Amino acid sequence: MARRSMRNQIVEAALEQFHAHGYNAAGVKTITDAAGVPKGSFYNHFHSKEALAVEALRYYGEGRLDDLAGGETEPLARLRAHFEALRDETVRLDYTRGCLIGNFGAEIADHSEVIRENVRQRFEGWADAIAATLEEAQRAGAVRADLDPPTVARFLLNTWEGTLVRARVDRSSDAFDAFFTTAFGPLLTGPAAV
Amino acid sequence: MARRSMRNQIVEAALEQFHAHGYNAAGVKTITDAAGVPKGSFYNHFHSKEALAVEALRYYGEGRLDDLAGGETEPLARLRAHFEALRDETVRLDYTRGCLIGNFGAEIADHSEVIRENVRQRFEGWADAIAATLEEAQRAGAVRADLDPPTVARFLLNTWEGTLVRARVDRSSDAFDAFFTTAFGPLLTGPAAV
Repeated sequence: MARRSMRNQIVEAALEQFHAHGYNAAGVKTITDAAGVPKGSFYNHFHSKEALAVEALRYYGEGRLDDLAGGETEPLARLRAHFEALRDETVRLDYTRGCLIGNFGAEIADHSEVIRENVRQRFEGWADAIAATLEEAQRAGAVRADLDPPTVARFLLNTWEGTLVRARVDRSSDAFDAFFTTAFGPLLTGPAAV
Repeated sequence: MARRSMRNQIVEAALEQFHAHGYNAAGVKTITDAAGVPKGSFYNHFHSKEALAVEALRYYGEGRLDDLAGGETEPLARLRAHFEALRDETVRLDYTRGCLIGNFGAEIADHSEVIRENVRQRFEGWADAIAATLEEAQRAGAVRADLDPPTVARFLLNTWEGTLVRARVDRSSDAFDAFFTTAFGPLLTGPAAV
């Protein structure tokens, strides 16, 4: 039990350090210090910093897609609320952090095959969940009939990741505003009826 | 003259190292080694790695917007060719590197005020150039009349940056395909005439 708890402490501290400072800037010593455990204990739990990063990604992703799953809310409103919750999280953190999946993708996908594959799978699962919601909204007549949900889902997710980078660079919600105005206006619902 | 040339050698090597490995992973020693100059010479030319990063950004950005400026090609075709050239560059480099501006934005905007401001200005100039091209295309009737060019330009640029991250993670052109299909189809030109 104690052993398991120390492992969790390390994963939580790593998520925080990777998210705040990036993969390369967060050393094992910094992480074990932040977790309040001896550096030597690290390799009892993880065989590498890379393995820890995969665990941090899993921990970060947990429950993040739950609000896209069916519910009482209309599918398009659900999709919008999903991105609004992620926006609110970024604003609350003063435009720092961004998305751990996207950050890892930008910083280390070229350098670690294990992390690259893990990031790829997480993006793919996320895009699939967005596509399913779009399809549901399309069947309900709330999304343009001429759109291909899997393609537009991938496009939207990529827009979201780029929007997060831009919002952090600007430290302003302008990029989020452009996202919501364009995605939930001309892109998904088409020109206003005249 | 020799002094100036050594400075350029350092900037070129830095651009290569920052682009290939990221800001944090590329140390001053690695950069001066790659430039073939003594490490001690670095501070004769730059007061910090941060100052060098700003120079590398300037060097990277040079001429990158030229193909958006007026010419004989139609504005919408020009915009498409602009992104296609950037895609081809990424494919040629086997899906490594991405965009230096976006990489810096994701990796270090939270940690360096100087680099954050520089990245912000480069994004802003790029978005303005895209907006001007969209406006021209709209006047020519090639882009939907209900779109606001400055807003959609920012949206598109953010999509592009996220698309690059995703293409690198996937090592495939799927993300580029979703970008071109969606942007130059339903988003900019609207539903096909029936």
